[in-house]
Amino acid sequence: MKRDYFIALEHLGNNSSLALNEVIEQLAFNEHGLIPVITQDAETKTMLMFAWMNKEALQKTLATKSMTYWSRSRQQLWVKGETSGHVQRMISMSFDCDGDAILCQVNQQGAPCHTGRESCFYLNVEADYQQVIVNEDHV
Amino acid sequence: MKRDYFIALEHLGNNSSLALNEVIEQLAFNEHGLIPVITQDAETKTMLMFAWMNKEALQKTLATKSMTYWSRSRQQLWVKGETSGHVQRMISMSFDCDGDAILCQVNQQGAPCHTGRESCFYLNVEADYQQVIVNEDHV
Repeated sequence: MKRDYFIALEHLGNNSSLALNEVIEQLAFNEHGLIPVITQDAETKTMLMFAWMNKEALQKTLATKSMTYWSRSRQQLWVKGETSGHVQRMISMSFDCDGDAILCQVNQQGAPCHTGRESCFYLNVEADYQQVIVNEDHV
Repeated sequence: MKRDYFIALEHLGNNSSLALNEVIEQLAFNEHGLIPVITQDAETKTMLMFAWMNKEALQKTLATKSMTYWSRSRQQLWVKGETSGHVQRMISMSFDCDGDAILCQVNQQGAPCHTGRESCFYLNVEADYQQVIVNEDHV
């Protein structure tokens, strides 16, 4: 999935700058118009959740600094915390080397997970015992 | 994309245990048989990269503790670092609340990114200036 545009960026030196709109146009939105988003706590670096954005959600997140995803189950924009109050304020956003994923660091109000847990990644594999343990404390 | 199996897990108490193979069978592999994987440095908590696994890559990673992805560009299993030496030893693996993403914490040898950088997420958005800055030092 290497894309020429991003290959051409690989040899740019540190602090080179690009127009944001140009880069967004080159991101690898999938056949449903979506791109994966990884959301990390800006302070603790805990991985909070994984979700998707379409271009509109991305633009809205950038404009409002309030994390806005695309809900695949509801097929609509989803301003995180709009009903629960558990909003995520965007602190930083980065794209990866081949433009097919977005990392956002956020300040999280309340719980990121709809189950009330502090991370969505609470199903922990214990490979040696062939089991999965429910526990949010490991992340 | 809520799935009944994972909804039923939501109210399990901490330290409940499930059979690993059962959970893997319920993961939300997409129409291409793939599931997103987020790879984080186990010590520094830096987000290293984003990639995909099919079920075989997942089983191989669990069996060998050597991070193994599915390369969408090459359409084959991809043992990270097999040619570069930049291997990733799996320290922990977790599934998220709706079983559609995997988080792995790893010990990284050398650089995770094929560009030699310490994170693939080196294209940093400066929303207020409508630009993207090349810099790996922020993550």
